[in-house]
Amino acid sequence: MGQLSTAAAPRWMLTRRFTESAGTLDSPVLPLADFDAWFAGRRAACDTQVDRVPLDRLRDWRTLPGGDLAHVTGRFFSIRGLRVRTDANPDGWSQPIIVQPDIGALGIVVREFDGVLHCLMQAKMEPGNVDGPQLSPTVQATRSNYSGVHRGRAVTYLQLLRPAAGGRVLVDSLQSEQGSWFLRKLNRNIVAEAVDDLPLADNFCWLTVGQIHRLLRRPNVVNMDARTVFSCLPLSAPTDEGDDFRAVLRRSITGPAAYHGLADVTSWLTDVRFRRELVQEVVPLDAVSSWRRTSTDIRHDSGRYFTIIGVDVRASREVTSWSQPLLAPVGQGLAALLVRRIDGVLHLLLQARVEAGTNQVAELAPTVQCCPANYRDVPRDRQPRYLADVQAAAAGSIRYDVVQSEEGGRFHHAQTRNVVVEVGDDFPMDVPPDYCWVTLHQVAALLQHPGYLCVEARTIVGCLRALAY
Amino acid sequence: MGQLSTAAAPRWMLTRRFTESAGTLDSPVLPLADFDAWFAGRRAACDTQVDRVPLDRLRDWRTLPGGDLAHVTGRFFSIRGLRVRTDANPDGWSQPIIVQPDIGALGIVVREFDGVLHCLMQAKMEPGNVDGPQLSPTVQATRSNYSGVHRGRAVTYLQLLRPAAGGRVLVDSLQSEQGSWFLRKLNRNIVAEAVDDLPLADNFCWLTVGQIHRLLRRPNVVNMDARTVFSCLPLSAPTDEGDDFRAVLRRSITGPAAYHGLADVTSWLTDVRFRRELVQEVVPLDAVSSWRRTSTDIRHDSGRYFTIIGVDVRASREVTSWSQPLLAPVGQGLAALLVRRIDGVLHLLLQARVEAGTNQVAELAPTVQCCPANYRDVPRDRQPRYLADVQAAAAGSIRYDVVQSEEGGRFHHAQTRNVVVEVGDDFPMDVPPDYCWVTLHQVAALLQHPGYLCVEARTIVGCLRALAY
Repeated sequence: MGQLSTAAAPRWMLTRRFTESAGTLDSPVLPLADFDAWFAGRRAACDTQVDRVPLDRLRDWRTLPGGDLAHVTGRFFSIRGLRVRTDANPDGWSQPIIVQPDIGALGIVVREFDGVLHCLMQAKMEPGNVDGPQLSPTVQATRSNYSGVHRGRAVTYLQLLRPAAGGRVLVDSLQSEQGSWFLRKLNRNIVAEAVDDLPLADNFCWLTVGQIHRLLRRPNVVNMDARTVFSCLPLSAPTDEGDDFRAVLRRSITGPAAYHGLADVTSWLTDVRFRRELVQEVVPLDAVSSWRRTSTDIRHDSGRYFTIIGVDVRASREVTSWSQPLLAPVGQGLAALLVRRIDGVLHLLLQARVEAGTNQVAELAPTVQCCPANYRDVPRDRQPRYLADVQAAAAGSIRYDVVQSEEGGRFHHAQTRNVVVEVGDDFPMDVPPDYCWVTLHQVAALLQHPGYLCVEARTIVGCLRALAY
Repeated sequence: MGQLSTAAAPRWMLTRRFTESAGTLDSPVLPLADFDAWFAGRRAACDTQVDRVPLDRLRDWRTLPGGDLAHVTGRFFSIRGLRVRTDANPDGWSQPIIVQPDIGALGIVVREFDGVLHCLMQAKMEPGNVDGPQLSPTVQATRSNYSGVHRGRAVTYLQLLRPAAGGRVLVDSLQSEQGSWFLRKLNRNIVAEAVDDLPLADNFCWLTVGQIHRLLRRPNVVNMDARTVFSCLPLSAPTDEGDDFRAVLRRSITGPAAYHGLADVTSWLTDVRFRRELVQEVVPLDAVSSWRRTSTDIRHDSGRYFTIIGVDVRASREVTSWSQPLLAPVGQGLAALLVRRIDGVLHLLLQARVEAGTNQVAELAPTVQCCPANYRDVPRDRQPRYLADVQAAAAGSIRYDVVQSEEGGRFHHAQTRNVVVEVGDDFPMDVPPDYCWVTLHQVAALLQHPGYLCVEARTIVGCLRALAY
């Protein structure tokens, strides 16, 4: 059968190659000690200036009749109103939401050095970043970049993501972005292998998967776009007999033993999607109740949730400068994962979560996902399920606790505390109908398809998995 | 590992059981000869009367300010306007569209008789049916049925789809409906096994998968809802050395040899979704241009596409009677699949197709999908790609050619000619960027997840696969 392939082999080879890179915790190409100096240099050299400006003074943005905030070209994104009704909230609510119909591409170019895959990462400044540049995919491109709507330079390395241009696509997965802030936004997570030598542009470096895993233990270094691509890498892990945390974590990655079969997990999600209700209606921003637009910003009457602000962005050494709105959450987010050993295999308690902008009603989210500040005055019995378990977790049960940033291209200083808490054998296996125990092996299978894991889940799952190497 | 399962085993067992049922071409439970008499009796006994009424006189429906047509309860579905812009049509167009945010459940209950799975099928009348009752899933339910919004009787057998009620879910898959007529509509395709004896209600019968496959060769017997559930059944097929059509078809079903790996197929679709553009904007129906609403109906100025009409529905022996709008296409649809042997394995030429109401930009569709009447006066070079190949196909190359109906609950006399044409070795393997060669084995893997195959593709793929037994 000369023309035919068998589909199974390549995925295994791919897994082996990425796993070897994950096991390479440091690399002579750029040792982490040198990375630190290089990255500090990138942050020091960054001269991007971001200044708050009133929404009424954003260059090239205008307020449409009805109140929507849009770019004069009609491209990029707009801030509109969304009216939402769910089964849990039949009276519904309305809110501003970011509408961006184009699919973004988040692409990491990889290449072998001494037989080990390295990732081409970029120290990239975004206007909403809290700490200056963060480590980003090789390319963050919108369809508009691709088709040349931006009149700036061509996007560096972008052409490698096209197989025809000498790259080889290893991973390619469509995934969602923040459902509370975006309306059904999708991005494409892509990893392509460069076969030929590549010039190393300014602000770029080569790192192994293992090195980047180590950087995930630090706050606000690896940006959201890089984290979501990383969560889609196929990885295995060496397994051994032990029952320390790393051993049970590794068995969760390598599978296939699991409390529920994968078909039962997808059937459970389908059942939640069928039982729950999510009716989304785009409305003019002026029709959103309890939110107030001033010349300066858009905010909720209660001061909760988020504010839409405006910024001017300018890098003094470059010609490029622009204005744009950003969504600024009022407080730090919390994404918490309860994990539990079941017969020596770590299981994650995922929630099927309905958010304002979710596509297909619900996606798998961390056990707890909220902005705790929004619940400060709310009685305990109306707070998010399991929030109290996370807040009361003993220090010895916390396996990961790091603040990471959401995407700085749309969100202003949006930080999320990512926490993994291991619960004991006394924690009930029976969970409410919107929750389910799954392994990392199952999560990896689901991440090959769109619409299963929300972006907050992808971050924390990737950070947890990184602890195995 | 007492509490843990391994995920792979159940799918294989399931495949074996459904394959055995597919190989059972007739059954003593209800031989096809007896089925014919029974089904003719059901059609003769059907006293449902469907009368055209002007849209302005639909009971319990009203025209909202802005022109949308909605049920007085705000439930069920509504006819609204949609403005669409794509990369191929940057000026865009607008059209009426059916909006139904709830997910429907299409459920088939199965049970073993003498060790062979039989499906509980229903002879069900829908107001838009062309030929009276058709063979339908055990249950067609909306979330509203489920939660009791309908004030009628409880839906028969519905409780079996809930695992807690003694059923066992074997297949559970979220899939889309017609993208040209529905805005991002989803249905749940579910098969559940009944463990206990079941009373056989009026209008119900037990048939094997093999018997239903034979009925798929007849026009308008197996309804769309049943066909989409059937397309999701896991099936294998005995393979042999021959190179007749059935042998190459069976190798396509059983896999895994394929021209492209499955990851390459999903990556190709992701690339199309990224490159193409689909911007959907719900607008008031009055704002839809080139369409005219009269007291009677809604139709396009050119007479093309479809008409929205109203009907009164009454079954004289029952209390139930209602009014509703239906979408009536102006001509017969065409869903055509070009298939080709590649190294002795049948491959299907699927198209990644963008439609007005498609979720996530594009889904896999038949090679040709259109209403040929809409292209009668259009120059050849602006007609759908490969339409001429289908129209010119020699009789000897046509493997399947049967008219099937679209769903009669929303569509009036909507019929589609489903054609499978086998092309020869001289047909080029190189196809345009929005087309791809896939096997039935790969299609089955994709159908375990939402959003890959559109409903027209699911019908023709299921009808093609049925020829293997």
